[in-house]
Amino acid sequence: MTETPILHEYAPSGNCYKIRLTAALLGQPIERRPYDILRGETRTEDFLASVNANGRIPVLQIGARFLPESNAACHWLADGSPLIPADRFDHADMLRWMFFEQYSHEPNIATLRFWLAFVGEATLSADQRAQIGAKRTAGEAALALMAGELERRDWLVGAAPSLADICLFAYTHVAGEGGFDLARWPAIGRWIDRVKALPGYVPIED
Amino acid sequence: MTETPILHEYAPSGNCYKIRLTAALLGQPIERRPYDILRGETRTEDFLASVNANGRIPVLQIGARFLPESNAACHWLADGSPLIPADRFDHADMLRWMFFEQYSHEPNIATLRFWLAFVGEATLSADQRAQIGAKRTAGEAALALMAGELERRDWLVGAAPSLADICLFAYTHVAGEGGFDLARWPAIGRWIDRVKALPGYVPIED
Repeated sequence: MTETPILHEYAPSGNCYKIRLTAALLGQPIERRPYDILRGETRTEDFLASVNANGRIPVLQIGARFLPESNAACHWLADGSPLIPADRFDHADMLRWMFFEQYSHEPNIATLRFWLAFVGEATLSADQRAQIGAKRTAGEAALALMAGELERRDWLVGAAPSLADICLFAYTHVAGEGGFDLARWPAIGRWIDRVKALPGYVPIED
Repeated sequence: MTETPILHEYAPSGNCYKIRLTAALLGQPIERRPYDILRGETRTEDFLASVNANGRIPVLQIGARFLPESNAACHWLADGSPLIPADRFDHADMLRWMFFEQYSHEPNIATLRFWLAFVGEATLSADQRAQIGAKRTAGEAALALMAGELERRDWLVGAAPSLADICLFAYTHVAGEGGFDLARWPAIGRWIDRVKALPGYVPIED
């Protein structure tokens, strides 16, 4: 690789952390450029025009090219490494968990964490407050689905850690900050310990 | 391939159609097994135990293995074909659009189509009705983002059609059924025509 990729990020975001964790496990240096999403720093004209028209972080910058969407950035970093299974079914099955993460897990588990631990319940709009119950139920269903799988196997795909584990780990291991009680799913707790024991692991706070 | 893959589906769903369209463009036969989601046929004990614990279609069955998540199923079908760019950045950039589809496009554009054209506005819960405005705004933003890209290029990634186009086409071309006025984004209309002209194209009704 000719240049160090640049991660445009808000450090406490699990979506940004996924990318840092993937890079760390691969021993791939990245440069970090912080934005404060609570102050709207990813909605400025300059950000929208030059980094991401969608107004979101993370974005991984590779040379002059910008790659939004956390799970796509992880795929770019891990391409050709053991974190992406070579087998055709397993590659697709890994992506299956990553799409599940973005559709069924993140909008519930990450959003409740953001609302309750970052924005603060008292500051939420009536609309947001009305959605808490549904997001709690859907988030618990997502965790139960993962637990059902992790009771039978150590890793979500095949016999080794893949991006499926990294991408789902990011918001799962801090789900307690959104009011989810992970003690209900011991298989998830054991899987979290396995991820934390991977060589090169970095915590979200780093 | 030794066996014909089986698509567990609800035919009018754009998520199911994506998989049929991918298979058709590749000349890959698939067997179709229908479920009526309006009658809860994907929430039965048998479906949850044997097809998808998440209670959702589509699921692509390959031999004895089951692959949920529409975009993952498309990836399995198209692996090794020109519908997935060989270039590392372009592969990730294709996935970027597919994650955008599931996070920013489908929950708004597909959901409004389902609510308004299938469930019926009069049958919606108060909770659902309260979300229509926000989903309308977010869906329009997703279409505007696509249009911004398609004003500058024929296909979302590189110079040829990829899964990014197929997966976003599925719900975009029927967005009118959810009350979106596609005439506002002429670049999207021209791109829809390009997709429809691809050799092997099949419409959603087939």
